[in-house]
Amino acid sequence: MNFIIRAARPEDCKAVERMIMELAVYERMPDQVKISHKELERDGFSQNPFYHCLVAEVPEAHKSTEGHTTVGYVLYYYTYSTWKGRCIYMEDLYVMPDFRERGIGKALVASIAKVGTEQQCMHLQFSVLDWNKPSLDFYMSKGAQDLTAKEGWHLLRFDGVALIKLAQEAP
Amino acid sequence: MNFIIRAARPEDCKAVERMIMELAVYERMPDQVKISHKELERDGFSQNPFYHCLVAEVPEAHKSTEGHTTVGYVLYYYTYSTWKGRCIYMEDLYVMPDFRERGIGKALVASIAKVGTEQQCMHLQFSVLDWNKPSLDFYMSKGAQDLTAKEGWHLLRFDGVALIKLAQEAP
Repeated sequence: MNFIIRAARPEDCKAVERMIMELAVYERMPDQVKISHKELERDGFSQNPFYHCLVAEVPEAHKSTEGHTTVGYVLYYYTYSTWKGRCIYMEDLYVMPDFRERGIGKALVASIAKVGTEQQCMHLQFSVLDWNKPSLDFYMSKGAQDLTAKEGWHLLRFDGVALIKLAQEAP
Repeated sequence: MNFIIRAARPEDCKAVERMIMELAVYERMPDQVKISHKELERDGFSQNPFYHCLVAEVPEAHKSTEGHTTVGYVLYYYTYSTWKGRCIYMEDLYVMPDFRERGIGKALVASIAKVGTEQQCMHLQFSVLDWNKPSLDFYMSKGAQDLTAKEGWHLLRFDGVALIKLAQEAP
């Protein structure tokens, strides 16, 4: 199937919002989604954007049964290693179920790897749930390293009241 | 002891480079450090900076035995959750050994929590090695959640040849 990968534009935010929700439904956590296309537009298309996004588009003739031609996305941002310098982080990767097994997901991942190397990023990182064996196997087969298994890195988070209380301790 | 926390300026990059190396020596991986103050200046002080940094400074009267007044730093950047929106990530936190146990580290963490809440970030994340119990205990006592232990998130990375090969598969 024909498809193209291109940078998301502000007018794609409604399609991205729809797919974020589809992904959350798949993960059985749709009530966790607190953002809409308005925040996506504000945060991704300002002077110092908080994220970047690529979308996968199919021709009108191959649109989904609901009429969608934007059928996948990858959302990423730049991070920084104090040892290596510029890095890139893949937050979300999603392809609509009817459009899987056609190379769209691989093309999306490869495209941000390309963006990363063009921007002189030293690595591409992302997080995967340990029960998600198909994804883990796919990434490992492509040469990814599991830093949690290999080096013992744990991801920690402050949010909600804990974050507010911590902020109040600032001098 | 008196100290102040302030945003790093380009002229602080040499001090930050020095402390990045001190931290890497402490972690017994000094040969992993591939960046210098030149990259730090370029990447942190451009129009779309790859990172931000706060430094801790003591008065001249309390300088280190080597004559340093910049005695700690915290390096962070903005990330993005497709469920929650804006987030902040703490890459490095360091205080010189002679200046520990004086609240400087806590003030640095609290300061980026404050920056985060001011920027409407929904959470502050960071990674800790599983053998680093003192740090884990400190963060957990402040209300942090261990997402790797709790939800099973693993950090994966493409770098070197694997990243280049992946980029070459882009359409």
